[in-house]
Amino acid sequence: MSLTIRGYAAQNATTPLAPHNFTRRDPRPDDVVIDILYCGVCHSDLHQARDEWHNSIFPMVPGHEIIGKVSAVGQAVTAFKAGDMVGVGCMVDSCQHCASCAEDLEQYCDEGATWTYNALDRRDGMPTYGGYSERIVVSHKFVVRVPEKLDPKTAAPLLCAGITTYSPLRHWKVGKGTKVAVVGLGGLGHMGLKFAKAMGAEVALFTRSPGKEAEARRLGADQVILSTDPEQMKAVAEHFDIVLDTVPNEHDINPYVATLKRDGTHILVGLLGPLDPALHTVPLLLKRRAVVGSAIGGIKETQEMLDFCAEKGITCDTEIIPIQQINTAYERMLKSDVHYRFVIDMATL
Amino acid sequence: MSLTIRGYAAQNATTPLAPHNFTRRDPRPDDVVIDILYCGVCHSDLHQARDEWHNSIFPMVPGHEIIGKVSAVGQAVTAFKAGDMVGVGCMVDSCQHCASCAEDLEQYCDEGATWTYNALDRRDGMPTYGGYSERIVVSHKFVVRVPEKLDPKTAAPLLCAGITTYSPLRHWKVGKGTKVAVVGLGGLGHMGLKFAKAMGAEVALFTRSPGKEAEARRLGADQVILSTDPEQMKAVAEHFDIVLDTVPNEHDINPYVATLKRDGTHILVGLLGPLDPALHTVPLLLKRRAVVGSAIGGIKETQEMLDFCAEKGITCDTEIIPIQQINTAYERMLKSDVHYRFVIDMATL
Ligand SMILES: [Zn+2]
Ligand SMILES: [Zn+2]
Ligand SMILES: [Zn+2]
Ligand SMILES: [Zn+2]
Repeated sequence: MSLTIRGYAAQNATTPLAPHNFTRRDPRPDDVVIDILYCGVCHSDLHQARDEWHNSIFPMVPGHEIIGKVSAVGQAVTAFKAGDMVGVGCMVDSCQHCASCAEDLEQYCDEGATWTYNALDRRDGMPTYGGYSERIVVSHKFVVRVPEKLDPKTAAPLLCAGITTYSPLRHWKVGKGTKVAVVGLGGLGHMGLKFAKAMGAEVALFTRSPGKEAEARRLGADQVILSTDPEQMKAVAEHFDIVLDTVPNEHDINPYVATLKRDGTHILVGLLGPLDPALHTVPLLLKRRAVVGSAIGGIKETQEMLDFCAEKGITCDTEIIPIQQINTAYERMLKSDVHYRFVIDMATL
Repeated sequence: MSLTIRGYAAQNATTPLAPHNFTRRDPRPDDVVIDILYCGVCHSDLHQARDEWHNSIFPMVPGHEIIGKVSAVGQAVTAFKAGDMVGVGCMVDSCQHCASCAEDLEQYCDEGATWTYNALDRRDGMPTYGGYSERIVVSHKFVVRVPEKLDPKTAAPLLCAGITTYSPLRHWKVGKGTKVAVVGLGGLGHMGLKFAKAMGAEVALFTRSPGKEAEARRLGADQVILSTDPEQMKAVAEHFDIVLDTVPNEHDINPYVATLKRDGTHILVGLLGPLDPALHTVPLLLKRRAVVGSAIGGIKETQEMLDFCAEKGITCDTEIIPIQQINTAYERMLKSDVHYRFVIDMATL
């Protein structure tokens, strides 16, 4: 098995992604080698390929919504064997001994998790490369099993878009009777609707664009609220237990906070940056409301999420593309022209 | 018994407080009549007397940290009798049927609680008048019992400064092993230190002024952190479970958020306004931190807090003043020249 790998990479912040050969490490005893079948395309791929977070390591092979088949396992690996359908998400390692790791919350590792790409391996210091490639080598502790009932194509985005919305809904105890509103109808938002509905909640979608009613209902929304209409917003004042805010761009969260009941929680999963316009504190004090953040989910919870999807028949709505269309896909993502996630068919490489 | 009452009032937003006679309602069957002995002086008295929240009703008799003796009770009142030492805090009524009222959280009443002063009585529509006066008439449901062990003078500020810090510490489950940091060492902050310590927490004080070490330790702090010193702040990065932020003025909460552990909570109890500088979301997402607000506490919890104070020997540090010094006291409060709460001896009226 050659560990020279074909993939697509950004050579710097301004060039389009293009074919690129690179080397992966020789598998360690605890490694799983995975032949990649599908890889979802996440907004953060684009941000990092263009160095918008000012921490990019080039050449960069993006991709952290990876589905593939195990082709080999190290001698210390017992949980997986060749032929298994598996997934890899945003992380490939963590310290494994801090309080967060001990609680299966590797994403909050005290030493920082090792990200699937655009990071340095914590053992050998080599750059990590993501799923826009034919094969990946990953510690078995960061590999999850894809249940047979799940279609590998539509399962890929569950590894980031899925777990990012599933984890906070679980953590803040969404269930029967909970009133959940999702802000934004993109890759994350559409999964938020599906999960909240499957967990038994009453589900609403906040949207700035009229005409999404039928689509939102198909995805699980019981109600669609046009957030640009003051009357509609007023009608849901102090109404929700949870607002799951998936919008990645700067936006005013105050109007959504006002729709939370006492002890309600506004969960940010997409926005990275200052809250501008400023968050007002009076609505927090007067109803003991909370504004919180949440990042992806731990490996154990990611497995639980995949199993939940299999049980409930939940998939991500995807558009399958050949790897050669990745740059066009990025442009379309910037225009929100995707329903709801691009997935690369890696056979096209 | 005459219901013409002597007190001190602001006649408008710009005149000092001065003697003022006014009328209280004839006691209803569910009312308790209380001869006021002491009344604490809260920052919000000053804000409202000067119409800084733009909702003032004049003439205004401030005061919502009231301790006194029951002089009469209505025929429907069984819990109190003449001679009982009792307290009245920030609220004198609420709807009594909403979800929050049903859960003993009258401060979050869906219809809005009726505040002790600067409000309109929800039954007769008449203005409410506070504790800078000789006597008050209040529904027995909003009267708490002052345990014998508590000195009435030092107990008065517990009715606002006390419950405002006690309630969130309880709600966010502070106890043995919890690491709590208090921001600000005023009326609220000094009570926060005492309560957190008495609940078994490890307690720190964040302060902008050097030289408060001994004083903070006397009040319960195990550690004092100079928030203007980057080295000291760095040393407590990701350290606390709870930051109890009592500062009423605009301030940057981001440096304190950074001292919270994963799943830590920054509790705002003093700040009313926009978060400026803006709150950054990345530290929320990366550690699943929360920024929350909390307002006073319910009546049941206020009683629990007074009983806790009696049990633990907790009092408020007070400076007793005659009512004639109230305007001077306001000026000194604006300069934070008070350790830690003024209490009016109402016998001086
Ligand atoms: Zn992603
Ligand atoms: Zn760790
Ligand atoms: Zn007060
Ligand atoms: Zn109520």
